[in-house]
Amino acid sequence: MDNRFKKRVMLMRYDIAIIGSGPAALSAAINAKIRNKSIIVFGSKNLSNKLVKAPVVDNYLGFSNVTGIELMESFKKHLDNLDIEIVNKKINNVYAMGDYFALMSGQEMFEATTVILGTGVEFTRAIEGEETFLGRGVGYCATCDAPLYKGKTVAIIGHTPDAEEEANYIDEIAEKTYYIPVYDMEKTTGAGDISENIEVISSKAVKIEGETHVNKLVLKDREIDVDGVFILKDSVSPGVLVPGLEIEGAHIKVNRDMSTNIAGCFAAGDCTGKPYQFMKAAGEGQVAGLSAVSYLSKLDK
Amino acid sequence: MDNRFKKRVMLMRYDIAIIGSGPAALSAAINAKIRNKSIIVFGSKNLSNKLVKAPVVDNYLGFSNVTGIELMESFKKHLDNLDIEIVNKKINNVYAMGDYFALMSGQEMFEATTVILGTGVEFTRAIEGEETFLGRGVGYCATCDAPLYKGKTVAIIGHTPDAEEEANYIDEIAEKTYYIPVYDMEKTTGAGDISENIEVISSKAVKIEGETHVNKLVLKDREIDVDGVFILKDSVSPGVLVPGLEIEGAHIKVNRDMSTNIAGCFAAGDCTGKPYQFMKAAGEGQVAGLSAVSYLSKLDK
Repeated sequence: MDNRFKKRVMLMRYDIAIIGSGPAALSAAINAKIRNKSIIVFGSKNLSNKLVKAPVVDNYLGFSNVTGIELMESFKKHLDNLDIEIVNKKINNVYAMGDYFALMSGQEMFEATTVILGTGVEFTRAIEGEETFLGRGVGYCATCDAPLYKGKTVAIIGHTPDAEEEANYIDEIAEKTYYIPVYDMEKTTGAGDISENIEVISSKAVKIEGETHVNKLVLKDREIDVDGVFILKDSVSPGVLVPGLEIEGAHIKVNRDMSTNIAGCFAAGDCTGKPYQFMKAAGEGQVAGLSAVSYLSKLDK
Repeated sequence: MDNRFKKRVMLMRYDIAIIGSGPAALSAAINAKIRNKSIIVFGSKNLSNKLVKAPVVDNYLGFSNVTGIELMESFKKHLDNLDIEIVNKKINNVYAMGDYFALMSGQEMFEATTVILGTGVEFTRAIEGEETFLGRGVGYCATCDAPLYKGKTVAIIGHTPDAEEEANYIDEIAEKTYYIPVYDMEKTTGAGDISENIEVISSKAVKIEGETHVNKLVLKDREIDVDGVFILKDSVSPGVLVPGLEIEGAHIKVNRDMSTNIAGCFAAGDCTGKPYQFMKAAGEGQVAGLSAVSYLSKLDK
């Protein structure tokens, strides 16, 4: 077989895939990169909303009295100096395949020998009925499940402006699309690219109802009949993201070396527990990065 | 009783005593100080020899390609901005007294409700016989045990120039003092203040011998008859420093919140285990600092 052809159809397999772009993920990335591992980092250009929104950070040792944006700029400079790029794609699922992991972003697949989860923590509670109807009309990835809603009515609850793009995509397929932004569309950067066909409702989702399948979304001041509800957040909850991952309360259960119950899968930062702090996250990210490096070197033997 | 008088004779009880001045200790200090706790930090002006000696640090997120000294300067600036001082005293023992800790520095005592150990890790192995004769001629604190050696012969193995001062003190009491520097006295900053009465031997200690008590120190190329041997390092091993502390291998056993087996005693950084990295240490220091704050707030209830 022609080797060049073979290479072309084979998927690049990274040593380490890092999910997230907060301090934990970035610290893991710089440590892995320095150790000459091939890495891919999935995150956002802003790196971390939590960081950008921090008016003052005074407890990150070495940076006295800086704004979150100043700290972010230092992180970006560090990434640039090490030629680390952030891939602006959302990973919806990570499957442990034995000797590697398959990471799904919509229909696109990435492969990596190890995975580091630095996904942060969602402070939003589940909506009543969300867990009950998960997979029966409730979904977290509009682009994945869109074909199911051809000619139907769909409500999208968008936690960040990124969700608007997914809503536009759904609207091309669905008969009717509602969009319920959780953020202030007028005041949020990046918001407002939503299609005119979509009915935007400024209200709050209270409850998802149905019998065997979703048929209604109850908002604070009205009810809408729907066939499906997508809840689009920046991060998917870790247990949904990585099937089989051991969770303790709201957090990923980790050992001192940041390994999880799944071999080759590590976690760091807010997703592993309190305190929710940048420096704690960066420290754990370093440990996770170096533990992944050590795991890879054992495989080579 | 006159309250002013009472105050004068009472020892100040700090909320948190921090032992060490590396990244773990400093990160604990800034977090505790920001939370308005009264703190005392025992360390050295150079902060950390390991830091000072690092030619390049590239994996401390936010600082790209800096020298150890540049990173140290950033840490110093951070301390200055928060009015945190380093007390240049060596703590030899920490005793858990129930609702507080007593910290001994030679004959001087300090009190604190909680203690954070950020003592780093010693890479030097014990000398043969060191553990056997500990307390029977071998000691780690010359100023503590000096009175025992009046008119006798003492050997001091100094790991850092700070040990020279202790040697001079011993020499005022002992009949004969030998000094065996582990560092290069001619090339090390701060070295060379040793008394002329002391016999400096440039050799390597190999073995400590005796019957019920030390009577000989075997060096690489000669043997000397001695009544006592002091081994003076920057840090005392944690199990010796805090009697009763649970140790696992060479490290302090800690939980995810950096608590140890002793209530109110926390640890962070290299002394808790690998990887021996600045960022990991700083992250753990933050957790230890915030855990101590949380421990204190529970006591107030």
